[in-house]
Amino acid sequence: MSIVGVGSIAFDTITTPSGHRDNILGGSLTHFSLAASYFTDVRVVAVVGEDFGPEQEEVFRKRNIDIRGIERAPGKTFRWGGKYLENLNEAKTDFTELNVFERFQPRIPREYMDSKFLFLGNIHPSLQAEVRQKMDGVSLTGGDTMNFWINGTRSELIQTLKVMDVLLINDTEAKMLAGEKNLPRAARKVLAMGPQALVIKHGEYGATIFFREGAFGIGSHPFRAPALPIEEVQDPTGAGDAFAGGFMGYIASQGELNREVLKRALFYGGVMGSFIVERFGSERLQSLTRKEIDSRFQVFRELTHLE
Amino acid sequence: MSIVGVGSIAFDTITTPSGHRDNILGGSLTHFSLAASYFTDVRVVAVVGEDFGPEQEEVFRKRNIDIRGIERAPGKTFRWGGKYLENLNEAKTDFTELNVFERFQPRIPREYMDSKFLFLGNIHPSLQAEVRQKMDGVSLTGGDTMNFWINGTRSELIQTLKVMDVLLINDTEAKMLAGEKNLPRAARKVLAMGPQALVIKHGEYGATIFFREGAFGIGSHPFRAPALPIEEVQDPTGAGDAFAGGFMGYIASQGELNREVLKRALFYGGVMGSFIVERFGSERLQSLTRKEIDSRFQVFRELTHLE
Repeated sequence: MSIVGVGSIAFDTITTPSGHRDNILGGSLTHFSLAASYFTDVRVVAVVGEDFGPEQEEVFRKRNIDIRGIERAPGKTFRWGGKYLENLNEAKTDFTELNVFERFQPRIPREYMDSKFLFLGNIHPSLQAEVRQKMDGVSLTGGDTMNFWINGTRSELIQTLKVMDVLLINDTEAKMLAGEKNLPRAARKVLAMGPQALVIKHGEYGATIFFREGAFGIGSHPFRAPALPIEEVQDPTGAGDAFAGGFMGYIASQGELNREVLKRALFYGGVMGSFIVERFGSERLQSLTRKEIDSRFQVFRELTHLE
Repeated sequence: MSIVGVGSIAFDTITTPSGHRDNILGGSLTHFSLAASYFTDVRVVAVVGEDFGPEQEEVFRKRNIDIRGIERAPGKTFRWGGKYLENLNEAKTDFTELNVFERFQPRIPREYMDSKFLFLGNIHPSLQAEVRQKMDGVSLTGGDTMNFWINGTRSELIQTLKVMDVLLINDTEAKMLAGEKNLPRAARKVLAMGPQALVIKHGEYGATIFFREGAFGIGSHPFRAPALPIEEVQDPTGAGDAFAGGFMGYIASQGELNREVLKRALFYGGVMGSFIVERFGSERLQSLTRKEIDSRFQVFRELTHLE
């Protein structure tokens, strides 16, 4: 079944120990939607500027992504520049030009309204809530957020969490949101804010999904998926978004919603995260095959499963 | 089959957010041997002072650990004091009194010589090499080391690594030893120094075992075991030693040496690490049952295995 994704499309200027790229197609929604497109039909909602041309459109079209929800506004597309130095886990931002993204008001095409899955990318929590409210027929909503919103718009975020079924954040964000340094305790506090499940991403150590008692089946045991040890990470940008795309895309492709589906989804999230970092920007996500994806899923399984 | 462990026995004074204990039985060998004792016969080689009495001996005897290799020297036993503040992953040392441990010369009882498994705890690499040389009939040697030896006695350590089959260290130590910040590349460099397998411990994220190409079977794929998300860590002291005890003890208990055995051993390492932190010092390791251990092994499996 199809999934609607809302978030940012951007031009990124990135330097890593492996090289440099100017103004390549990026943004959380780009990475999310490309990753999800290998599993299900994807429809995107975003805003771009006059500098977003047929070349960029083609990247989405090739992956059969519905771009009727991409609004063109006067001005320039969101631009971000950053460097990864020795520590590939942390970007040093050179510049952030929000441009048209600053006044982003997500408009959902009528044709998207029958989608049963929704992903709210990392935008203002009030906008996330608005989109969720408009799409009141969805059966599962996933979402992302970041330190900036956790600190700056906490009360709005708390409201939005009440209508999010699965929240995907990293360790630091989970601890900050919960005000608690112990991870499983932090997870329990975040789940009490609303979500049925919480995915905490640990970067190179994988991810853990915590379930609210009784949600998606019996019990409350967490589940861990690994990340692949990778010898050459060319560019870590978008790894979390590709993770979310694999995770949500796989869920949307399945007929039912239960813990086993969410666990496998966590593996597919890791798989898509492991692909994107092999090349700059979204390059690797543009040219994958489902066969490559399933073969790497198998590697993830061998990495963690006893005979 | 029996395993010989060499390392430190100490009295620890520990403060954590959960409480405080004075002069409790600790030391890497204590934690290692107690953990290993649930899997196989354990024989220890260590030095203690005159303050080590029947009460402490009893802890080992109760677990059927052979203490004929514990030498009593004039003076006091090694003492360590430390605090874990907000960050339970890092101890702040208050004092280190090496006492009799400063002149530790491991003497291996003749009765230990038929052991096929050896664990070289965190002592001077030259002493490790000496012990390994004396016990030249062993079929598998595991070992630990730390930043202090990696920086201070690098050339001795490099020599010792040539006679160690499995090295168990943490992320920081692996990166420091290899002079390489990327983990799988660091692992490859360390394996090139001698070991057949390298276990890198990631604290709350579990551990990864990297194999030298062709060692213990076909292929060179790594394997990851999780750690259990624990809501209340009372005292993290000894988690790495308990991990090593579970890992080596399980290996020694098996009839054959292959990758599947080492993978399961990695899980048992995580299991023993998850128990020790539930109480102060070695308290939890003194009163476990094999049933509790295997039931937690099952929890680890459920935490990571898809249906």
